[in-house]
Amino acid sequence: MAPRRVGLWLIGACGGVASTTALGLSALARGQTPPTGLVTALPQFAGHDFDAPDAFVVGGHDIRKGNFLTAARELHERSNVFDERTLAACAGDLETWSANLRPGVVYRPDAAVTALADRPDMRRAGSAREAIDTIQADLRAFKAAHKLDQLVVVNAASTEPPFEPTDEQKSLERLLPALERGAPASLPTSGVYAFAALDAGFPYVNMTPSRGATLPALEELARKRGVPHAGQDLKTGETLLKSVLAPMFARRNLRVLSWVGHNILGNRDGLVLNDPDNKSSKVTSKDRLLAELLGYKPQSHVSIEYIESLDDWKTAWDHVHFEGFLGTKMMLQFTWQGCDSLLAAPLVIDLVRLTALAQRRGESGPMPHLACFFKSPIGVSDHDFGKQFALLEAYLANPDRKAGSA
Amino acid sequence: MAPRRVGLWLIGACGGVASTTALGLSALARGQTPPTGLVTALPQFAGHDFDAPDAFVVGGHDIRKGNFLTAARELHERSNVFDERTLAACAGDLETWSANLRPGVVYRPDAAVTALADRPDMRRAGSAREAIDTIQADLRAFKAAHKLDQLVVVNAASTEPPFEPTDEQKSLERLLPALERGAPASLPTSGVYAFAALDAGFPYVNMTPSRGATLPALEELARKRGVPHAGQDLKTGETLLKSVLAPMFARRNLRVLSWVGHNILGNRDGLVLNDPDNKSSKVTSKDRLLAELLGYKPQSHVSIEYIESLDDWKTAWDHVHFEGFLGTKMMLQFTWQGCDSLLAAPLVIDLVRLTALAQRRGESGPMPHLACFFKSPIGVSDHDFGKQFALLEAYLANPDRKAGSA
Amino acid sequence: MAPRRVGLWLIGACGGVASTTALGLSALARGQTPPTGLVTALPQFAGHDFDAPDAFVVGGHDIRKGNFLTAARELHERSNVFDERTLAACAGDLETWSANLRPGVVYRPDAAVTALADRPDMRRAGSAREAIDTIQADLRAFKAAHKLDQLVVVNAASTEPPFEPTDEQKSLERLLPALERGAPASLPTSGVYAFAALDAGFPYVNMTPSRGATLPALEELARKRGVPHAGQDLKTGETLLKSVLAPMFARRNLRVLSWVGHNILGNRDGLVLNDPDNKSSKVTSKDRLLAELLGYKPQSHVSIEYIESLDDWKTAWDHVHFEGFLGTKMMLQFTWQGCDSLLAAPLVIDLVRLTALAQRRGESGPMPHLACFFKSPIGVSDHDFGKQFALLEAYLANPDRKAGSA
Amino acid sequence: MAPRRVGLWLIGACGGVASTTALGLSALARGQTPPTGLVTALPQFAGHDFDAPDAFVVGGHDIRKGNFLTAARELHERSNVFDERTLAACAGDLETWSANLRPGVVYRPDAAVTALADRPDMRRAGSAREAIDTIQADLRAFKAAHKLDQLVVVNAASTEPPFEPTDEQKSLERLLPALERGAPASLPTSGVYAFAALDAGFPYVNMTPSRGATLPALEELARKRGVPHAGQDLKTGETLLKSVLAPMFARRNLRVLSWVGHNILGNRDGLVLNDPDNKSSKVTSKDRLLAELLGYKPQSHVSIEYIESLDDWKTAWDHVHFEGFLGTKMMLQFTWQGCDSLLAAPLVIDLVRLTALAQRRGESGPMPHLACFFKSPIGVSDHDFGKQFALLEAYLANPDRKAGSA
Repeated sequence: MAPRRVGLWLIGACGGVASTTALGLSALARGQTPPTGLVTALPQFAGHDFDAPDAFVVGGHDIRKGNFLTAARELHERSNVFDERTLAACAGDLETWSANLRPGVVYRPDAAVTALADRPDMRRAGSAREAIDTIQADLRAFKAAHKLDQLVVVNAASTEPPFEPTDEQKSLERLLPALERGAPASLPTSGVYAFAALDAGFPYVNMTPSRGATLPALEELARKRGVPHAGQDLKTGETLLKSVLAPMFARRNLRVLSWVGHNILGNRDGLVLNDPDNKSSKVTSKDRLLAELLGYKPQSHVSIEYIESLDDWKTAWDHVHFEGFLGTKMMLQFTWQGCDSLLAAPLVIDLVRLTALAQRRGESGPMPHLACFFKSPIGVSDHDFGKQFALLEAYLANPDRKAGSA
Repeated sequence: MAPRRVGLWLIGACGGVASTTALGLSALARGQTPPTGLVTALPQFAGHDFDAPDAFVVGGHDIRKGNFLTAARELHERSNVFDERTLAACAGDLETWSANLRPGVVYRPDAAVTALADRPDMRRAGSAREAIDTIQADLRAFKAAHKLDQLVVVNAASTEPPFEPTDEQKSLERLLPALERGAPASLPTSGVYAFAALDAGFPYVNMTPSRGATLPALEELARKRGVPHAGQDLKTGETLLKSVLAPMFARRNLRVLSWVGHNILGNRDGLVLNDPDNKSSKVTSKDRLLAELLGYKPQSHVSIEYIESLDDWKTAWDHVHFEGFLGTKMMLQFTWQGCDSLLAAPLVIDLVRLTALAQRRGESGPMPHLACFFKSPIGVSDHDFGKQFALLEAYLANPDRKAGSA
Repeated sequence: MAPRRVGLWLIGACGGVASTTALGLSALARGQTPPTGLVTALPQFAGHDFDAPDAFVVGGHDIRKGNFLTAARELHERSNVFDERTLAACAGDLETWSANLRPGVVYRPDAAVTALADRPDMRRAGSAREAIDTIQADLRAFKAAHKLDQLVVVNAASTEPPFEPTDEQKSLERLLPALERGAPASLPTSGVYAFAALDAGFPYVNMTPSRGATLPALEELARKRGVPHAGQDLKTGETLLKSVLAPMFARRNLRVLSWVGHNILGNRDGLVLNDPDNKSSKVTSKDRLLAELLGYKPQSHVSIEYIESLDDWKTAWDHVHFEGFLGTKMMLQFTWQGCDSLLAAPLVIDLVRLTALAQRRGESGPMPHLACFFKSPIGVSDHDFGKQFALLEAYLANPDRKAGSA
Repeated sequence: MAPRRVGLWLIGACGGVASTTALGLSALARGQTPPTGLVTALPQFAGHDFDAPDAFVVGGHDIRKGNFLTAARELHERSNVFDERTLAACAGDLETWSANLRPGVVYRPDAAVTALADRPDMRRAGSAREAIDTIQADLRAFKAAHKLDQLVVVNAASTEPPFEPTDEQKSLERLLPALERGAPASLPTSGVYAFAALDAGFPYVNMTPSRGATLPALEELARKRGVPHAGQDLKTGETLLKSVLAPMFARRNLRVLSWVGHNILGNRDGLVLNDPDNKSSKVTSKDRLLAELLGYKPQSHVSIEYIESLDDWKTAWDHVHFEGFLGTKMMLQFTWQGCDSLLAAPLVIDLVRLTALAQRRGESGPMPHLACFFKSPIGVSDHDFGKQFALLEAYLANPDRKAGSA
């Protein structure tokens, strides 16, 4: 039997996360790096039927010029990550995969996206329907060309501004005719890509705070087509820390008075977030979980600022003011200095592996056992990282039962 | 039926933790303060048969001059904690309880203890046996005088230097004759107090890194007498954080390269720890759990320094250097500014309540469900705070079953 | 000869800075506290003819209810500063001085001021001229009642929103007729008070970022009346650190790439600054000096957020990203935890002493030798704290020569 | 007239500082890098007769295997500094200069040095005199081979353990006969090299806390031979910050209660410092200046720990506890993350340029105008960085007058 071949399609393929994912898959396949940072490589998860690094074929969309290799090189030079040796060893794979890149499909872009888009052959769609058709054609061509057994679509594009779902976005019954008649606001960009993937039967994973497949109509679509999907907004830094520290305060009955988090970063994600509209989406996602973890809402403040010199190194300072016994005020402060793309890329690989596995197991809809990866996990309201991780452990320990379905 | 009366006997009664515990019990009983910082006051534990604050009568031993009120006042003035209002409201209770104080019993004291001891009427015992008899007489007199239903003995004294257990300390069979013949090293000071309590049937809780009841012979004694006990070394600051942060790194497969923790504090605990012998006991206790939480031993360094100006405010700086994907080194740093006595005192109340409850349930020996309170929990090797807390939840949810006994 | 009596008139008398200043003067006069934090008490400045603490009589305006004693008590309780002993020893003085308080004069108040004003007898002026007359009457009555030799007026009120000076505010020649005809925007609130003081011959010191006497027309007035004045915006925390750290980077030719400063605080100052208009005034003042100290403008970001639980404890986190040799990026981070009123109050006393001295020396106009106290010193463009301090040393070492006039 | 050629002889040539200095000189000469980090490249010092980067010829001694290129490459790979492009552009120069390397001369080595020494052809001297002769022969051969106009010797070797000077080391009159008769402890290793340089007329600069030319007999020798020298212990991180922050506290009359500094680093310097003897030399040097800057001695604590994963990235956490007005305790904390070799190397170039200039000006003995570079500047007791820098400015502004000689 021929070995399994799994496609990974990256929306935002020339970004830091996507290009690091491609570089990482190649480096893992070539034995250039240990699997540090991969949850699926933990000893306790050995023996599961995860796809090996060399099973993957990578492609993607982007609205910017460049390819996997130039993007990885740029990240190397600006952010001082990876080394020349790894880049040299993997350059061939990255070039090969770059041939699978397709120009992005733009439909009603927001200002931040417009500012970034510089690929002359990107395709402007007149309607959401047209955009979906174009994307699906790309996905199907990729699958056919590489004789892929499975194909997972991953949203690693820039964050889009938040919005309130329209009636059409709230039910598939209303969405479908709206798409057919070319109703202008029927879907945002992230929704167009999610629709294209799910409708064509390809699992969809959303690393960003954009809506993606969380729109009710698209959740319906996923169930109808029997496709698993996951999201939203990877939990890689400050929020990950909140999800382990806030339960500690709660369990010790220490009252959090205020929690202030300031994030600075200098990558393209930061540039897009510098637009107030796009930023508010991210800030909301980061801020919400505190009340859920503590059982009350302390004063909180979250900021994200674009500081160019930091490149991909996101630096966060958090100041937690809490009250202990007899009204005594105390403080915890932390600073987190992490490289965003390097924190996110192994989790992309994890999520693709886990999603492909779920599809093979015949699962569809949101995957609650993946809650530990996300700031706003679909369908899971508990934000305690320890408890979320236990969901994953339980899922993998019981191959025939979905987490939460007991 | 008369309301239950529970005695709390504090070894090291004039220290910051003990006097804050007394002040706190009074303040809670008088409605002067909310139960912030008490685990037993968490909403999810409501409905359990925990003793109310006004059920307690407090007494204790100390080798230093002073009483509950002077010690609480000193802490207020030096460390800028509590307020005048609380002190005034509780002064009467503290004075009443101070009448229960007895001069400490000294047997083969180490240098740090000798330097502290200034109470002229403290009693020097010629043998461990004599010390035990004196202590037991004090405990029994306290119980009788106040018609107590239960009496819990708590070690809140200064840390003693570490040592390797002798053969006599390893079995009750050998210890008892050694005590009778007055063998010089039969028990350290913390062991003498623990023996006295357990032998007389009083539960014993050890807040310190001193050996206390962890000596095998004393564990045997506890089981033989059917008495529950708990310890050792309260987890209130840096180590508490380690026990939630290290599992986070482990679960994300991020490799901790080094973990450096520097602690500075200026209370009497800090002064005793300034003695290199006593310090090593504390440092070992703080350092050990990292390897157990991560599954490997990163380079680590822990220091504790006495900095007088900080008084009871323990300040810790931790620098965690870790490796992510593709060999990328990243950093987490935190500073913790907590007031030791205020962090520990509510946990003393929790432990006394939980221990009294266990005794009423007929339990004896170490209590694994209390692991979440300690740096070195007796009989529990998992240091993950979330999992330890789940043991407590399971214990309280199943009144007829002990944690870990399933 | 009767001892000198000097009046200190505080605009914003019920604020934290003003009430701490009053408490501090009383505590110094009564020997309750050492002069820690007072520049004029440094050993190298001994022997100068500074007014002794007991030479001062304190009064002031406010638009809020309360007095020196209630304001000091509130600060004590909310921010956990001072002790009961000091408050008790000084309560009599504070009550005596509180009798000198007069209701504030409001003229075209901004939204933040309106929200604060709760004193029912405050006086609403129909024109700047009317406001000035009312204020001058208060000042003159205070001086007469206490037979004061000198009277210094200090602006310690909340920050007003920034604005561009009008033509009338740019020359005395235009301002005076505008005042007479009741032109509506002739002066902002801070300008009204400054005009009242200077015009009546009383030196004026501006602790805030509000315009105060920095309007060109008022600078003219000060010279014409022969009155010294000083400002603007006390340098007490993050900016003080910038003014010593930035010169260090400059002298070592280390290139600052970005300097991010996040400030959080919970006092009334913070509440007023939470209004975006008022905040921008403060942020601009804090941000400007970096370019002047470094000789180029790095990317910088300054935020101030109101976090209620911090009360008067301003906490700042600064992240300085700099480039060293061979393009190597390095980092300095600091956190500053200072109590604003306690940092500012001794400097108010210093400035009043130094201003009274200057007036006795016959000086008028801005005092460049006071640059080391301010974020935006009038007439001094060098922000290097060391060099600014040298101006003060030179001034005091040469009693007959003004700093900068060599 | 032929352009001037200046030799730079590095003791400890294969260390991080020395190899970075060589790489930096080449990169500057080839226009590969801007002169960031060089004090002598500041705009205000333009126009001085400093030697251009391409005037230098580099050589040195080491007891370890390796050369300039291998050492620079190792630093690149371990500490993630420089880039491949710079290394490639400068590899030729580094190889050429590596031909000038000579095996180190070992005389009575301490344990840490012995552990490092792995160069098989290093020369063990039987007496200090013999060591001196060998070193001088190397220096003279280097000068002759390259027709050097000047030659500056720089100590960039590992720190040696501290010791109290012997009588022989205190006067040249006693030292010279002791050398002749081969008295065993006549000079430590750093003294042997310093003697060799000064005695042969070559200026000597000591970047380390080792004694070097600070022994009274060697200071005498320098004056007698008319040779300038400088030292000791470069001020590059935590101490530099102390020398700007402590004067700030002093000038504001804020009382420093305690100053705790914890340093962690993982380079060879750190490894040698892990030896308690060698460490105490460094710690003393770092700790002393606080009392001199403040005018009183606060409690202070300095630690240096070897943490392998940090490589050349020295990370320091400082906690400054200070008292403000009315007894209020406040805090400043900072963390410094700097790459030691990259901070030191440009200062080596500065010092060589300034020393060569001084020699051309006919100066001899210690150079007080270089105080701003050192933790323990010879002959200057003022540790205020701003004032020290003013000495350098004054010196360069007055070409005919030495600093401090007015």
